[in-house]
Amino acid sequence: MSVQNLEDIFFRIRSNKVFETFVVSIIIFSALVIGVKTYEIPPLIEEVVGVLDWMITVIFLVEIIIRFIGEPNKKYFFKNGWNVFDTLIVVVSLVPIEDSELAIVGRLIRIFRVLRMVSIIPELRILLNSLLKALPQLAYVMLLMFIIFYIYAAIGSTFFAKVDPKLWGDIAISMLTLFRVMTFEDWTDVMYATQEYYPFSWVFYLSFIFFTAFAFLNMIIGIVVNVLESERQKISEVKDDEKHDQELSELASIKAELTQLRLLIESRR
Amino acid sequence: MSVQNLEDIFFRIRSNKVFETFVVSIIIFSALVIGVKTYEIPPLIEEVVGVLDWMITVIFLVEIIIRFIGEPNKKYFFKNGWNVFDTLIVVVSLVPIEDSELAIVGRLIRIFRVLRMVSIIPELRILLNSLLKALPQLAYVMLLMFIIFYIYAAIGSTFFAKVDPKLWGDIAISMLTLFRVMTFEDWTDVMYATQEYYPFSWVFYLSFIFFTAFAFLNMIIGIVVNVLESERQKISEVKDDEKHDQELSELASIKAELTQLRLLIESRR
Amino acid sequence: MSVQNLEDIFFRIRSNKVFETFVVSIIIFSALVIGVKTYEIPPLIEEVVGVLDWMITVIFLVEIIIRFIGEPNKKYFFKNGWNVFDTLIVVVSLVPIEDSELAIVGRLIRIFRVLRMVSIIPELRILLNSLLKALPQLAYVMLLMFIIFYIYAAIGSTFFAKVDPKLWGDIAISMLTLFRVMTFEDWTDVMYATQEYYPFSWVFYLSFIFFTAFAFLNMIIGIVVNVLESERQKISEVKDDEKHDQELSELASIKAELTQLRLLIESRR
Amino acid sequence: MSVQNLEDIFFRIRSNKVFETFVVSIIIFSALVIGVKTYEIPPLIEEVVGVLDWMITVIFLVEIIIRFIGEPNKKYFFKNGWNVFDTLIVVVSLVPIEDSELAIVGRLIRIFRVLRMVSIIPELRILLNSLLKALPQLAYVMLLMFIIFYIYAAIGSTFFAKVDPKLWGDIAISMLTLFRVMTFEDWTDVMYATQEYYPFSWVFYLSFIFFTAFAFLNMIIGIVVNVLESERQKISEVKDDEKHDQELSELASIKAELTQLRLLIESRR
Repeated sequence: MSVQNLEDIFFRIRSNKVFETFVVSIIIFSALVIGVKTYEIPPLIEEVVGVLDWMITVIFLVEIIIRFIGEPNKKYFFKNGWNVFDTLIVVVSLVPIEDSELAIVGRLIRIFRVLRMVSIIPELRILLNSLLKALPQLAYVMLLMFIIFYIYAAIGSTFFAKVDPKLWGDIAISMLTLFRVMTFEDWTDVMYATQEYYPFSWVFYLSFIFFTAFAFLNMIIGIVVNVLESERQKISEVKDDEKHDQELSELASIKAELTQLRLLIESRR
Repeated sequence: MSVQNLEDIFFRIRSNKVFETFVVSIIIFSALVIGVKTYEIPPLIEEVVGVLDWMITVIFLVEIIIRFIGEPNKKYFFKNGWNVFDTLIVVVSLVPIEDSELAIVGRLIRIFRVLRMVSIIPELRILLNSLLKALPQLAYVMLLMFIIFYIYAAIGSTFFAKVDPKLWGDIAISMLTLFRVMTFEDWTDVMYATQEYYPFSWVFYLSFIFFTAFAFLNMIIGIVVNVLESERQKISEVKDDEKHDQELSELASIKAELTQLRLLIESRR
Repeated sequence: MSVQNLEDIFFRIRSNKVFETFVVSIIIFSALVIGVKTYEIPPLIEEVVGVLDWMITVIFLVEIIIRFIGEPNKKYFFKNGWNVFDTLIVVVSLVPIEDSELAIVGRLIRIFRVLRMVSIIPELRILLNSLLKALPQLAYVMLLMFIIFYIYAAIGSTFFAKVDPKLWGDIAISMLTLFRVMTFEDWTDVMYATQEYYPFSWVFYLSFIFFTAFAFLNMIIGIVVNVLESERQKISEVKDDEKHDQELSELASIKAELTQLRLLIESRR
Repeated sequence: MSVQNLEDIFFRIRSNKVFETFVVSIIIFSALVIGVKTYEIPPLIEEVVGVLDWMITVIFLVEIIIRFIGEPNKKYFFKNGWNVFDTLIVVVSLVPIEDSELAIVGRLIRIFRVLRMVSIIPELRILLNSLLKALPQLAYVMLLMFIIFYIYAAIGSTFFAKVDPKLWGDIAISMLTLFRVMTFEDWTDVMYATQEYYPFSWVFYLSFIFFTAFAFLNMIIGIVVNVLESERQKISEVKDDEKHDQELSELASIKAELTQLRLLIESRR
């Protein structure tokens, strides 16, 4: 059996629907195993779970190898971000960890295996990609929002640090507190505390809420407009162009007919 | 009187506007009876309410029978989900319940009778159907959101279980806590508690809020785009096509005229 | 001076820009007087405020009389809801109230005078009218939402009344509590309390939040779609129709030219 | 070296990409210095920070002077709001402040320097301008909202002042409390307190929430519609007009052809 044959067979395996379903169910099973581990379980079951964990790792390893060998263009394989992510997750799972400090890293790696769901199901991959594509458009709105946060946090920590250092101690804590205010989470408690020292501090909070709400609104509208625009263009352009072309070709044929007619009359002169 | 005659009469009854209004008012009345039962009432009125309850059940039974006999195509009757729902609700109401445990089931069944409002009023039925039709389009966004929740809940219960078992004890409780964080309900209390052990746990909460807010936003935009698309297509297509057809037929008649003209000139050669 | 002359003069007064500005400033002044009364003020100023109050009432009375006499069609005057509202507010203000119980009604009437702002400024009147026009379209969504609330309140007061009668005592209180849950206001406190008796009561809250959020979302989308549709139709229709008509008239003139041509050729036979 | 030469050189400097990048990095650096000052720092570093602060001020001063000299049209310079803002910030920073009362003003001025980011980066300036342009369209909705707030605050302070003077003491405090209710921040606590005196005060809160939510919704829809309208017009107009013109010119050429044809035939008579 030649190498080419092996590649063909593995390519057929990885394109197989049954294979994909099997991998998805293994991912779901590994997610369940992760879930079970968060409960207090008797040592026996814990051992069973440990064994299952290793089995899943081995299955994932085999799967990645099949995928890699089945890839006609080997270079292309690691250009795909999802393939790199899958390989990394599996390879790191293979490293045996004894240290209790690192054990938590091992657990985290196993949790991130659930993300393989996204790398396997094409619809989720498309969804995530379209989400990520929308991000750069928002870069400037986010920068503006960060500037608003930074200025208010600087003002906040300058004036209110002595009122409540836990909320306004330094600029980093102040930004967290401002995020809390933006989510309206007990923001009046924060305000009432500072109002005892600075009765007019409500101006600070209300103007902050207005600015961020306004910037946030703008961000949402920006996304909606972008999405709608691209959607509309896709549909209306195609249809309108078709109709336009149809009408133009009709007009062209009329013109040709007319030219012919004139030539006919002229020839009879 | 033949069976066919009976079917005709009942068909006319069930299509009757007065009959429909009567049924709707009985449903409203049954809703009021349910409401009254939640107040503390003297035993006498309680008995009256019990009698009213049975009368409503009987009226509903008669109504369903009229509907069924009045249905020209008997097989079709139970293919309609709402008819099945109506029949089930009425039949279960008929079962006499003595046991105090089951009494609460009986009460629940009577409460669900209010839902018959939806099955009777066509506008509500249409509204609910259009809502349900929008759901599958969101299936993948919801799956993505569930994966985000699951991963964060796994991480949360791994790290924070010892901080507050009531909030982060296992993966199920953690998911509930994360839903709470998503609704911004006292989420800073949850965060401040974990920050005492892990000062950087704000990264966990903020990234979670950003991811879910982003996925949620995407879901809303998805619905809006879908709705707008279908609305637009319905309207613009019809109108544009009409105009286009009108213009095309004008052009066709001009072409016919021209052809005729050429034939005329050619014939005179 | 004839009655007709008086009507003409008063009509000119009420259409006068200066008169309108004067009335608006009196309304703003009356709003300020209302604001001042909420502060603790020395008896002297309180008396001044009382006098100002009567002066405002008299000015409003004179204004309404001018408006009424200036109205060419007297019957039409009271068909306008805003005129009725204005007249009522002023007439009731005139009734002298001694009783302390009714004094509060008098104060309320004076507060509602601020609403005259809406009846005077046309832009606000248009805005409010367009808001009210959008309401009936939402009637069925609101009915559906009420049914959801009613069913959940009935279930809630059946099961949770014994847990906390202040929150779930009867169906009315339960609906208020559910509204609180819908606004996410300390909803987890409500849930945690019932979870001690019914550990699975989270299903109740989460399903309620999902249903209401979904219905609410639908309501918003409904409004947006309606607004966009009507906006789009107004603009695109006019422009498209114009272009379409232009093209059609061009085609018609071509056809006429062709017919003339055929007749010309035929006449030369 | 003539003055004109100097202007040319400085114009080239201010249009230089390297110069812009340098200014942006100085602004970022000044923002970091502001951030550092909110932490407790040893006196030595504090002195270093003070020196850095003066260096930044000097750099900004030089930059403004370069910009001013480089401006071909000197009058135009101070018509640009951003230039005025930049100059003001820098000039005020230059004033030496010894008084501890005014020291805080100096600190505030230094914080506002971060806003120079907006004045330097064109994309942020455009973003902010488009945000500010959207504001006047909302003026009437905001006026309506203010009227709603004012009326409810007047009613609230009339009835509830004795229940809790901290929340309903006068009309200003009441408006702040109503803003809190609008953000759903512990609004049930506010309501439950007043319900003990006025059991029906839930009508007050619920109607307020409905009115403001409705007005708010209207505001958002207003913005979305405005944005979409302007976006759509920009795109569709251009494209549609182009196609329309193309079709019209085709029709015109056909008409010209026809006229020529008729003349030809007529000439042969």
